[in-house]
Amino acid sequence: MTTHIGLIGLGRMGGNMRTRLENAGLTVTGYDTNPEVSDVASVDELLAALPTPRVVWVMVPAGEITDAVVTELGDKLSEGDLVIDGGNSRFTEDERHAADLAERGIRFVDAGVSGGIWGLDNGYGLMVGGDKADVAELMPVFDALRPEGPREEGFVHAGPVGAGHYVKMVHNGIEYGLMQAYAEGFELLEKKDLVHDVAGSFKAWQRGTVVRSWLLDLMVRALDEDDDLSEIEGYVDDSGEGRWTVEEAIANAVPMPAISASLFARFESRQEDSNAMKAVAALRNQFGGHAVKKA
Amino acid sequence: MTTHIGLIGLGRMGGNMRTRLENAGLTVTGYDTNPEVSDVASVDELLAALPTPRVVWVMVPAGEITDAVVTELGDKLSEGDLVIDGGNSRFTEDERHAADLAERGIRFVDAGVSGGIWGLDNGYGLMVGGDKADVAELMPVFDALRPEGPREEGFVHAGPVGAGHYVKMVHNGIEYGLMQAYAEGFELLEKKDLVHDVAGSFKAWQRGTVVRSWLLDLMVRALDEDDDLSEIEGYVDDSGEGRWTVEEAIANAVPMPAISASLFARFESRQEDSNAMKAVAALRNQFGGHAVKKA
Amino acid sequence: MTTHIGLIGLGRMGGNMRTRLENAGLTVTGYDTNPEVSDVASVDELLAALPTPRVVWVMVPAGEITDAVVTELGDKLSEGDLVIDGGNSRFTEDERHAADLAERGIRFVDAGVSGGIWGLDNGYGLMVGGDKADVAELMPVFDALRPEGPREEGFVHAGPVGAGHYVKMVHNGIEYGLMQAYAEGFELLEKKDLVHDVAGSFKAWQRGTVVRSWLLDLMVRALDEDDDLSEIEGYVDDSGEGRWTVEEAIANAVPMPAISASLFARFESRQEDSNAMKAVAALRNQFGGHAVKKA
Amino acid sequence: MTTHIGLIGLGRMGGNMRTRLENAGLTVTGYDTNPEVSDVASVDELLAALPTPRVVWVMVPAGEITDAVVTELGDKLSEGDLVIDGGNSRFTEDERHAADLAERGIRFVDAGVSGGIWGLDNGYGLMVGGDKADVAELMPVFDALRPEGPREEGFVHAGPVGAGHYVKMVHNGIEYGLMQAYAEGFELLEKKDLVHDVAGSFKAWQRGTVVRSWLLDLMVRALDEDDDLSEIEGYVDDSGEGRWTVEEAIANAVPMPAISASLFARFESRQEDSNAMKAVAALRNQFGGHAVKKA
Repeated sequence: MTTHIGLIGLGRMGGNMRTRLENAGLTVTGYDTNPEVSDVASVDELLAALPTPRVVWVMVPAGEITDAVVTELGDKLSEGDLVIDGGNSRFTEDERHAADLAERGIRFVDAGVSGGIWGLDNGYGLMVGGDKADVAELMPVFDALRPEGPREEGFVHAGPVGAGHYVKMVHNGIEYGLMQAYAEGFELLEKKDLVHDVAGSFKAWQRGTVVRSWLLDLMVRALDEDDDLSEIEGYVDDSGEGRWTVEEAIANAVPMPAISASLFARFESRQEDSNAMKAVAALRNQFGGHAVKKA
Repeated sequence: MTTHIGLIGLGRMGGNMRTRLENAGLTVTGYDTNPEVSDVASVDELLAALPTPRVVWVMVPAGEITDAVVTELGDKLSEGDLVIDGGNSRFTEDERHAADLAERGIRFVDAGVSGGIWGLDNGYGLMVGGDKADVAELMPVFDALRPEGPREEGFVHAGPVGAGHYVKMVHNGIEYGLMQAYAEGFELLEKKDLVHDVAGSFKAWQRGTVVRSWLLDLMVRALDEDDDLSEIEGYVDDSGEGRWTVEEAIANAVPMPAISASLFARFESRQEDSNAMKAVAALRNQFGGHAVKKA
Repeated sequence: MTTHIGLIGLGRMGGNMRTRLENAGLTVTGYDTNPEVSDVASVDELLAALPTPRVVWVMVPAGEITDAVVTELGDKLSEGDLVIDGGNSRFTEDERHAADLAERGIRFVDAGVSGGIWGLDNGYGLMVGGDKADVAELMPVFDALRPEGPREEGFVHAGPVGAGHYVKMVHNGIEYGLMQAYAEGFELLEKKDLVHDVAGSFKAWQRGTVVRSWLLDLMVRALDEDDDLSEIEGYVDDSGEGRWTVEEAIANAVPMPAISASLFARFESRQEDSNAMKAVAALRNQFGGHAVKKA
Repeated sequence: MTTHIGLIGLGRMGGNMRTRLENAGLTVTGYDTNPEVSDVASVDELLAALPTPRVVWVMVPAGEITDAVVTELGDKLSEGDLVIDGGNSRFTEDERHAADLAERGIRFVDAGVSGGIWGLDNGYGLMVGGDKADVAELMPVFDALRPEGPREEGFVHAGPVGAGHYVKMVHNGIEYGLMQAYAEGFELLEKKDLVHDVAGSFKAWQRGTVVRSWLLDLMVRALDEDDDLSEIEGYVDDSGEGRWTVEEAIANAVPMPAISASLFARFESRQEDSNAMKAVAALRNQFGGHAVKKA
């Protein structure tokens, strides 16, 4: 059973996870490109510090950076060692990483991690993919990271390699839909003069109602700080997992009208102007002589 | 058979319709609040000029103005006279107007009119609701207004009072969806560097393709004038019929995902900022510490 | 302060509410058309049993039945008495009811009530509209019904008459969106072979994750009973408030793509076949010779 | 300038294209796996029959079959020869095919072809990607295939390799949206008792209206054959290009609510039951005790 792990990436997520692991009595050797938070000066030093078989948790941005770290670990680790990708990688990356590492006898597990900046205190929801034996070996790590309470309410071994990130991806797709639902309701309440206390209405939904949730609690928190959100812009980034969820819906012929609408709303939120709506304006002008606004 | 009608409202639509009616050999007495285009000085004069039973075509903005004109006609016309509402009234208004007029024995027909500023030359597509005998009596008027070619390709008696405007309403809802489809395609082509000739692509769709249409021809016209639509803003009004179409979809439990999406895209096009997307941005900030843009 | 109320309607909601009110020490005289659950034999008896000013909570199906009960109360109550509509009425009904009752000096308050069959134990989330003094007088009733904890987390006085049902309507619209988001995620996970434990994944989201919520807990409960939902049909009714929410979005030019998608998904779920999709199939056949399925 | 081409694939599209090319005076040597329509017995015979540089138009199903044919041609053609892929390949395939062929000095042009079974008589709308010189050389072929009228109204050289299929892909995405718009309107008209003549309404839209189009003409044709489409099922396949359009929208952060809705409607049309809607039904049952239908 794993009691000492290497942790590469000590940013907002990784740093808190180190703390939580150590609080649970595990030993963590952490490496980050930022020397101020790093326990060791290099990946080589990190690997030298670990007992064998070595277990390394990778917690860096998905895509090129995760790719580079996994490749480096593939070069430097030995047969029987184990890599966990805890970042937000696409599940297809997991399959590739696992295959590459397997050529050298290195094991791979993927772990979707939810909880954001609240995970340090609340624990992290964990969705894991990989071989049964590998996951079993890692349970002390997962138990330290996951929330208090019954294990199955904060942890799932969802299937083989890739399944953890797949479930996390769908989790984030659902998250897009949940946020959009609250957001559309908020906009309508703000628009309607009849309703005098929008922030109070959200607050009142926290107990007893069907829509109570952690996201609702966060919405109340946001409205406590700025009761009509006038201080911020309606500009919303997206980080990949919403897109992948809709891509998977398409690939699997699954209708996904609400989650896709939530994704498109984010795209719109970032546009200065819309070429699509220019086209509609131009068409109305052409057939009906309706006035257009000059840019 | 009607050969002389009164026409109230001589704006962009009404004015052209008078011309088209007169070109077909009918007599038109027109009234407008703008004396420069008006044949008579008042509604009273107009009514005095008509043979009995008097036929009056109302071609003024839907809503309060149409309401006022129909009410005035109800007061001033006599049993057996006939009112046609050719504006963009909601079909529910027709039922009310017909009932009010019927109390005084005045007949009522509703006519949805499509064709915009092109109708003068091309003729107007006509969708009519009312009693069979009333519609039969009005055929010389409808035949003058509708396009050349077989009558049934530019005219329909769709049902009882209200059915004409109902079909016109759905026509406009479809129109929203058609425009949105071209518009979304335009935006994607504009975004993709691989495609060097977006305007040329639309132009090339005019013959032989599945997407050829009159709206496509108008899109080509717009792109001929401004090949990336950079001179106009993506700001799009809506005039009622798109909203009513979606309302009717809801009332009749008819799924309408594409047309409703087209309507909502117009709403978005007119927003400076979105309260909904402020809420999403605020939520992402709350759970993940993701940066927000300050307003 | 109100300590004895009349309660008309003792069904699934009203019956539980009576229990909760009585448990809190209030006196309830209940009337229902079902004599087995009724405390009195008629509305007249109920009104005779109440102290003045009389307070009557109406908890019957929205629409015609609520209308009939409010009309009857308008006839039988006296100046200074107070009617609360706790059902799922459209906010526009409230305004009408309040005006009608006001003609006889009878006061009116609307209360949106959320919590379903769980309200008996958990308390009911309350969203209230009406005059400040009327609401203040009713606080013992609201405090008995609402969940334990800070009052403002389970109760809001949202504005004047109608505002309570308006906030409840939007609450339900949001609820449609939340359910649809989980549902779309469920379908994708079920479709994807990679994921071996869909029910376990939902269960694991209950703690620590961003998507945790009461609805998620209920989803876990449903999957505990039937782990792939194979025993039920994907047939979903809608009860009015989702439709009204989208209607209000349209009336107020608020984009509502996700909630409207959720509503339309319900409409689709109830269709044996789709005329829209027949049309698409027919069109594909016409232009491409693509085969159609014979009905 | 090309006057003799090889044509691989003589199915519904390829067969008609051969006829049209021959009618225009070009020489076509056709090969198909079906010997009844084939001019030659093998690809080798086809290549032997062509003048150099040889020009081969590939008109077979996209994906594996196109891949196999292009690979075979890459093995058998010589430097300076030219392959045209006229099928419905994804634009990313073009880039790969062009690169593979370029290694042996073979040129590649992609051509999106629209027009379906009507192309034989009407001509085919052509969207082409490739090098300027290659496209110029092929103009006799393109001119024979495209519709009568100005070249630029039925043909576009949209950009480098891949651009032709990209524009065709977007064309098909738009097509999905257009069909869905008419379809939603059809369903609403069918549902509403007020409208007595739905087929007649579509017919009447053919002249003068804003929604007139070739697809509308086809809808009228379909309704002429079966005036309420009762003989066919609302079951609609999709062939790839709609999916790719939405994938590209996602990849390029382009909002595409109407076209994606059209795609999802097709997915839904093919489902016996919906796991998503089972989940919604289960949730309603859990919180409100609402009845579910047993499967």
